[in-house]
Amino acid sequence: MTKKDNILIVGAGLCGSLLALRLGQRGYNISVYEKRPDLRKIDISAGRSINLAFSDRGIKAMKLVGLEEKVKPLCIPMNGRMLHDVAGNTVLAPYSGREHEYINSISRGDLNALLLDEAEALPNVTIYFNHKSTEVDFENSIAHFYQYETKSEVSKKADVIFGTDGAGSSLRKSYYLGKKFLFSFSQDYLTHGYKELSILPAKNGGYKVFKNALHIWGRGDFMLIALPNLDGSFTVTLFLSYAEGEYNFNNLTTKEKVLEFFTTYFKDALELMPNLIDDFFENPTSPLGTVKCSPWHYKGNTLLMGDSAHAIVPFYGQGMNASFEDVVEFDKYLDDAQDWESVFKAFEKSRKIDTDAIADLAIDNFHEMKGHVNNAIFREKRNLEMALEKNFPTEYSSKYSLVTFNENIGYYKAMTQGRAQDKAMLNMIADHDISISEKTSKEELAAILKKVQTETENILEEDRIAKNM
Amino acid sequence: MTKKDNILIVGAGLCGSLLALRLGQRGYNISVYEKRPDLRKIDISAGRSINLAFSDRGIKAMKLVGLEEKVKPLCIPMNGRMLHDVAGNTVLAPYSGREHEYINSISRGDLNALLLDEAEALPNVTIYFNHKSTEVDFENSIAHFYQYETKSEVSKKADVIFGTDGAGSSLRKSYYLGKKFLFSFSQDYLTHGYKELSILPAKNGGYKVFKNALHIWGRGDFMLIALPNLDGSFTVTLFLSYAEGEYNFNNLTTKEKVLEFFTTYFKDALELMPNLIDDFFENPTSPLGTVKCSPWHYKGNTLLMGDSAHAIVPFYGQGMNASFEDVVEFDKYLDDAQDWESVFKAFEKSRKIDTDAIADLAIDNFHEMKGHVNNAIFREKRNLEMALEKNFPTEYSSKYSLVTFNENIGYYKAMTQGRAQDKAMLNMIADHDISISEKTSKEELAAILKKVQTETENILEEDRIAKNM
Repeated sequence: MTKKDNILIVGAGLCGSLLALRLGQRGYNISVYEKRPDLRKIDISAGRSINLAFSDRGIKAMKLVGLEEKVKPLCIPMNGRMLHDVAGNTVLAPYSGREHEYINSISRGDLNALLLDEAEALPNVTIYFNHKSTEVDFENSIAHFYQYETKSEVSKKADVIFGTDGAGSSLRKSYYLGKKFLFSFSQDYLTHGYKELSILPAKNGGYKVFKNALHIWGRGDFMLIALPNLDGSFTVTLFLSYAEGEYNFNNLTTKEKVLEFFTTYFKDALELMPNLIDDFFENPTSPLGTVKCSPWHYKGNTLLMGDSAHAIVPFYGQGMNASFEDVVEFDKYLDDAQDWESVFKAFEKSRKIDTDAIADLAIDNFHEMKGHVNNAIFREKRNLEMALEKNFPTEYSSKYSLVTFNENIGYYKAMTQGRAQDKAMLNMIADHDISISEKTSKEELAAILKKVQTETENILEEDRIAKNM
Repeated sequence: MTKKDNILIVGAGLCGSLLALRLGQRGYNISVYEKRPDLRKIDISAGRSINLAFSDRGIKAMKLVGLEEKVKPLCIPMNGRMLHDVAGNTVLAPYSGREHEYINSISRGDLNALLLDEAEALPNVTIYFNHKSTEVDFENSIAHFYQYETKSEVSKKADVIFGTDGAGSSLRKSYYLGKKFLFSFSQDYLTHGYKELSILPAKNGGYKVFKNALHIWGRGDFMLIALPNLDGSFTVTLFLSYAEGEYNFNNLTTKEKVLEFFTTYFKDALELMPNLIDDFFENPTSPLGTVKCSPWHYKGNTLLMGDSAHAIVPFYGQGMNASFEDVVEFDKYLDDAQDWESVFKAFEKSRKIDTDAIADLAIDNFHEMKGHVNNAIFREKRNLEMALEKNFPTEYSSKYSLVTFNENIGYYKAMTQGRAQDKAMLNMIADHDISISEKTSKEELAAILKKVQTETENILEEDRIAKNM
């Protein structure tokens, strides 16, 4: 491998444009081919998630490419979950007991445009739009495209091809259909789908509800969430079963039924959404799926990265952050690299365990957000965690904090440690071994921390013995 | 649904022929289409596993169709694992402490032939061979075949189509490629493949090694096993990584290297296999994969059953038993059935959790057979379990016994209970809380049983609290 290598990237979404920027900064010759038109020129947001939760793993990647300051103006801090109950009461549940830890709402389009601008500013990076990848000949490193403008097929040969073409990846499909090697693959759909709605800005251009939170209307079997946008609006998402329950996507077919559903379960949200019915019937209902696969690479010819290798459900707000972290992790192998195959192999070997973990964590959080946030033991655990994080900021991090704010701990370690902590605390709370109230002193908290740490270690040790024998 | 419904079954392997027999007994009109020639007329064993472990769940299915007595002469009891170490020492590790609990080695071909004979003897069952399913139009219940003898395409319409066409199912492929509904699907390959070898009968027609055991040469990263056949031979299977380790399928390319490998690791087995080199280079190396999917059915039109719905790795000896149990479970829904869709839905809803569990258990057992059988704590656990099963036969069953000999307990419950027991025992042995020797009295065993039961309940309860919150 040399700096003269011609690198082809399929897909100029968030992961592809960041990868192009980073490899461009390293001096490779980069051609990026994107299916859609240039989003800086045409609004192509319809049907896609238009804002995202952006947190420390994503910020780590911005630091790597020198964009930390440029991305800041795009961010709206969200300090916690604003929980809305059926009666319209709200409570803010912070994400962390440490004040400097929060997540951000960011526009997918704005962030992608920034990355495209920066990548395209490099002389050795060229981006082509309106090229839909139809197949990748991974044995000969040739990517085949359909060019929408000329309505013709084009084929491009490269030294190395990266597939950053998202959950429906064409490169991954070529691996699967090619049957040239044993390709492990899974696509798992939830029984729930999602639909985007919106809360428009107030008449004065301000926010109709509290700006700096991720709003959640959790109703056990379904939920509504809202994230703020810079223009004063919120992007709202309804997560609901396709076919089960009294109300579901299959039976919400009339204006009356939709209004009845929202009046019953989301009355305070409905009052903020006079545009609900239009949004509901104009916007598509989309599925929620997890994709895992292996191997990600074929020899030193091709590599899947980002959603194409590991698409996850959105409930941990980590999809984009995980894809950005892919680029950071991949970059580490380039300094001393001998050949692409060794780089690809080493990257997958160290990275896959972490992307598998965040996929599983994201499913966990679906259940947590829908229902557990309203459960008494869960809420006591969260209260306790906030107190521990506040009083012992260097000694305790919740699972959420480990995943979201500890970008130097891998997802797998965060999951293992975080689940053991949760299990320890939930059981000790259920057994009345530990509890928290406003009167709990710092000394009492220190004793609780000790108990939690000891029990967490026991749980991890018992699992180790059961697994390794 | 009525008895006049025309039922089409794709695949006349073990599951398909049993299903045809059972539905035939119930009076439906059945047509079965099988890709291969009639195995009763032509030997088509090459490359497929020619014998199988047959145990209580499979026997339960034989009872359902009235074949319990006819299948007995085909069975060779295997009372335990005969463990062979590198030096050639052997020890018999029983499968159960209860003497009447053992598994059987059975010929796939003999069993399949019996089922085909019985099904074909019914006037309302017809079996067509040499018909390869190319696609199933599940919306219109039409199966498309390629007929090898006439070299022509044929299409068959039915009221209901069952896909019992194995791990590479054509019906499942049609679901996947059809994209008419959200189809969750996974195929997961192990890094190991397998190759069949053989120990031929002794000159006097007898068995060269102990007949009534499943022989295992576990070497940590790879292993050899052998199951007896009625003719005095053993079918031997080598499980080995494709690409990793000093010796692997990719580098065992010469006679010298294969002999070196067997001389180093399987000396006593090599002495029984003068035919090793021929077998090794004539027989294919095949992959080991797990397939899961959902939904299994499309409306009331089509249903996947057996390996086509849930292919598993062979290490628990449960693949065929699980497929046979599918038929038993499915049959339960037919007595009060109103329509096929309700039957299919109810069957999948209750059954999938169990077939997912046996898939995961089979992976666990791969690691157990390769290495754990040689681990001190694992062996002490097994010794203790054998003593508990012998002394308290109605009060204790190991995970292996729950899975293999308790056909009225579902796989999921067997897995959950069995894993918790294992975790409890392994940890208590590691902590020197419990131990067993030849001197351990029945009273001491009773006290150990109590401890194990209490700790198992604790583990299950703690998991429940952590999961449900």
